Order: sequence, then C-alpha cells, then structure tokens
Amino acid sequence: MKIVVALGGNALILPGQKGTAQDQMANVKKTCEQLRIIEEENEIVVTHGNGPQVGNLLIQQKEANGKVAEMPLDVCGAMTQGQLGYWIQQEMRNEGLHATTIVTQVLVDGGDPAFSKPTKPVGPFYKEPQPGMVQDAGRGYRKVVASPIPIEIVEIDAIKAMIAKGLVVIASGGGGIPVVKKDGKLAGVEAVIDKDRAAQVLANEIFADVLMIPTAVDCVKLNYGKKDEKEIWEMGVEDAERHLANGEFAEGSMKPKVEACVAFVKKGGKKAVICSIENIGKALEGRAGTTIHA
Amino acid sequence: MKIVVALGGNALILPGQKGTAQDQMANVKKTCEQLRIIEEENEIVVTHGNGPQVGNLLIQQKEANGKVAEMPLDVCGAMTQGQLGYWIQQEMRNEGLHATTIVTQVLVDGGDPAFSKPTKPVGPFYKEPQPGMVQDAGRGYRKVVASPIPIEIVEIDAIKAMIAKGLVVIASGGGGIPVVKKDGKLAGVEAVIDKDRAAQVLANEIFADVLMIPTAVDCVKLNYGKKDEKEIWEMGVEDAERHLANGEFAEGSMKPKVEACVAFVKKGGKKAVICSIENIGKALEGRAGTTIHA
Repeated sequence: MKIVVALGGNALILPGQKGTAQDQMANVKKTCEQLRIIEEENEIVVTHGNGPQVGNLLIQQKEANGKVAEMPLDVCGAMTQGQLGYWIQQEMRNEGLHATTIVTQVLVDGGDPAFSKPTKPVGPFYKEPQPGMVQDAGRGYRKVVASPIPIEIVEIDAIKAMIAKGLVVIASGGGGIPVVKKDGKLAGVEAVIDKDRAAQVLANEIFADVLMIPTAVDCVKLNYGKKDEKEIWEMGVEDAERHLANGEFAEGSMKPKVEACVAFVKKGGKKAVICSIENIGKALEGRAGTTIHA
Repeated sequence: MKIVVALGGNALILPGQKGTAQDQMANVKKTCEQLRIIEEENEIVVTHGNGPQVGNLLIQQKEANGKVAEMPLDVCGAMTQGQLGYWIQQEMRNEGLHATTIVTQVLVDGGDPAFSKPTKPVGPFYKEPQPGMVQDAGRGYRKVVASPIPIEIVEIDAIKAMIAKGLVVIASGGGGIPVVKKDGKLAGVEAVIDKDRAAQVLANEIFADVLMIPTAVDCVKLNYGKKDEKEIWEMGVEDAERHLANGEFAEGSMKPKVEACVAFVKKGGKKAVICSIENIGKALEGRAGTTIHA
C-alpha cells in the first residue's frame, strides 16, 4: 500500500524540552524506527508539521533584527523544511531507507476568504501590539496570519518521480511553503497551511491508499475529557461528518485531523488513520487508533 | 549535454545589499533567466554556495541564544538549502522549468586531515576569543571549522531519479550538509565543504558533460591584478595544474574553482567552464569565459 504519514511538529520537541538539535534528533530517531516497520511492506511518503521550529526561527529573526535582515514567514517555512527534512532523511537512511526531502511549495488561492480574516498566531510575543497583531491567550501580542486551504502541491512532478523509483519522499513540511499565483507567476505569502490538510491534498494527488496522522493521543474520542468520554475505533465518513457538525472535535487540534481524513476518503482514499506514534504498525492493521473509511 | 552549474552564494547578496529576501530573490531571478537560456537545449543541475546566508543565520543563532536553542552548523546548512532552494526553484518554475530542491548530505572522511587543522572561519565575530576561535583579519575572533574533501553525495539516488524524469535538480547547496560515517551511521559534523569541490563530485557522479562555475569575473587570469595580467580563454588540465603549482590562483577564490575544474575533467568530464553569470550561454559555446579541457 501507498501510505502518507503526517508527523506533528510538536512530536519532535517534547514537553519540557528546549528543542536543542540533540533532543529533536533523538525524537526523530524514535519516530523513524516506527516508520521503518511499516515501510517494509508498504511505500511511504512522510510529511511533517513545523510549528515549534518555525516559531523558534521567527524569534531568532526578531532578536537579530538590525544586525541581519529578517526573513519573511514563507522563507522561514522553507528553512524548517531543510532542517526537519535533513534530520528525518538522515535517520531514515540510518534505518536503511532511501529517503530524501523535496522542498515543497503548496498553492493557495489569493482570494481565499482566510486572507480577509487571519486567525493563526505565529512567531514571538510582543508586549505592545503592532499592526496585524492580536492578544494571544493573555501571553502577549502576536502577529496573526491567514490559514488558507491548500489547492495543489507545486512540486508533485518531483514527488511522483521519486516514488516511481521506490524512494521514500519527505515533502510538504510545515504544510508546505504557501504560494499564490500572481499574473501566472508563483509568489510566497505570509500564511500557514494546516499540515494535515496539506497532507490530504498530497495523499490524494499521489493516489495514496492510506493517510496516517500520528498524534499525542491513542485515538479519536467523543465527549473528550468528559465523564462519558468514548473512544472511537472506526467510523464511516458520514459519522465523522456528523461528529464534526456537532462540534465534537477541538479547533486547531483534532478537528483539522478528522476533516483531513474525511476529505481524503471522500476523494478516493481507502482509509485514514489517527493514532499514537508508538502504534502506527498496529493501527495500520486496525488493531489500534481510529480508522476512518468510506 | 548534461551540465552542472555551481552558483556562488555571494552572487545572491550583491555589494552594498543587506541581503533582504527581496534583494536576494531579485538576484535569483536574474540568474534564473540566464539558466533558462541554456536549459532549452541541455539538461541542467544547479548547485549553489551559501556563505553569506549561513553567516547571517549563525548570527541569528547567537543573538537569540538563551531564548531559543542554537542550531549547529550542519543544521544551519540544511536550513539554507531550504531557503535558497526555495527561491531558485520558485523562480525557475516561473521561467517554465520543472525545478526542485533535494536536501543533500555530502559524505566526508572523519579522518580527513582537515579536521586536525581547521582553516575556515564561520559565523559571527566575537570581541574575546573562545575555544576553537581564531583572529579573523583584525575584525575580531571567529569560530574556525574544517573544510574536508567531499567523497560522495548521499542522496545521489534521488538526484538521478529526478534527472531521469527530465526535471531540473537543485542539490548540494552550500557544498552539501557535511556528514561522516560513525559505526556505519551518518552523523552531521561542524564543517564547511567547498561548494565547487562538492559540485565536481556531483558532476562526476551523474556523468555530466560540463561543469560550469559562474563567478564575479569574466574569466581566469594569470598574474591577476598585475600589470602583465593575462586572460585565459582555454587551457588543458596540464597547463591548469602547472599554474596551480605555481600559485597563480588565489586561495579560497579562484584556486578551488580551477582545482574543481581540473578534477572534473580528469575524472571523465568533457569540459569545465569558469565565466561571469551574464555570459553562461556564450561561455558554453566557448565564446566567453575560460574553458578547461583534457
């Protein structure tokens, strides 16, 4: 089977860790050991988030401002693709897999309504608000950017070429570098694409059988955190859509994951799986996690 | 013909520029317009330096230290591959070329004598020397790292897969991320690989016909900067080796370029060309620049 695995950027900086290169590489190593297991009998394509990494890089841009030109968000995103891609491909090659990172742009619509009401806070906290900033959970002011819907993966030609040769591709890191078309030309924009939605677009474009979204919890739950919390081991897209409509899943957390799974299956994917990173082997066989099917 | 073009990292931040994203992208655009011309009748693979970009990133690492974990040199190199690769592939795609960046590790020998006498100053200047630092041209103290000889391109499988599909590959940026093998496993090292030497290894590994090294001058010169300065339009490898032995070419500047050209031709390349970026089309036809042949 052809499987797209969408790793969380948070999985590489664990609670209490400062995010040193050493910490992150040790976490990448554990993840890659899991991925090697499923790669034995399947073709895998890896994508990943970059939230904490691009956050750190944006802090560095600000702290060195005046000495060094600050890079905009799209360029910082490209830099984290190099950073995380390097760690993942090195560790995968050390596990015997021929993995390589493709720097990936993802096309969004310049007219996406998300651009008229940005919702995604990014980068360092400021004491005083500046234009385009919002108060973020009482911790200070932060720049807020749009989170537009991904339309297509620009470098899909390269990704397909590598898959065809049996190589493991790492692509669309951080949801991809967001670009729009202006007068027919690609141009980077200051935005953040949800990594699970970008993973879904990638998975459908390469006709993957499975979309796997490893996360911090074992499976999707109804009434999450309440007395009558209930684990879901499998559900059809209609059930998933009903739960989404009922507001069962948290914004910015489980909701976009379930949405990505539903979209993937509706566009032809066989199944989508949400599970803990330790259980990806079992979850692929339906023995752990939540499976979403047609 | 299959051509490897090795762009200088300096070509993207011109004298007097601060290196904003806007400046660098405008410079990338000019370069890509030139590359499009030669791509029409040839297959091209692009590699690039990253000196000023990784220098800026290292300054940012230092300035934000205490707030954010500093990334080591190998990781910063990977980040600049993402950054510069993104700009180059976006601009190339805007010129109609199917270009994609491969994050690239380059293997060096952990026993390379370069590691016992590091010579390459990198990163910010310090007022007080710290361990492993040297005085750099009276401007302060800088960390000094090894510049080992590149042995092989780790991701050559991916690069070949993309070339086979007719895609333009951008690879081995900044001379590649330097890695050694420890107990059979790849591990990053704090070193800088000369980008022209890495380009030569890449060019020979993919059996390129031509290695092109665009630079700030029109061609190679004897008695450079002296009264009897003499332009060289073409030379055989024996002549080139004689001039190298006579110390005709500047260390860290023209010398590694000529050395890379000589090594490329001796290992089977048809010809190597050193020219200005404006003249790469003419130089490929032997009407500009310096051609080095067997």
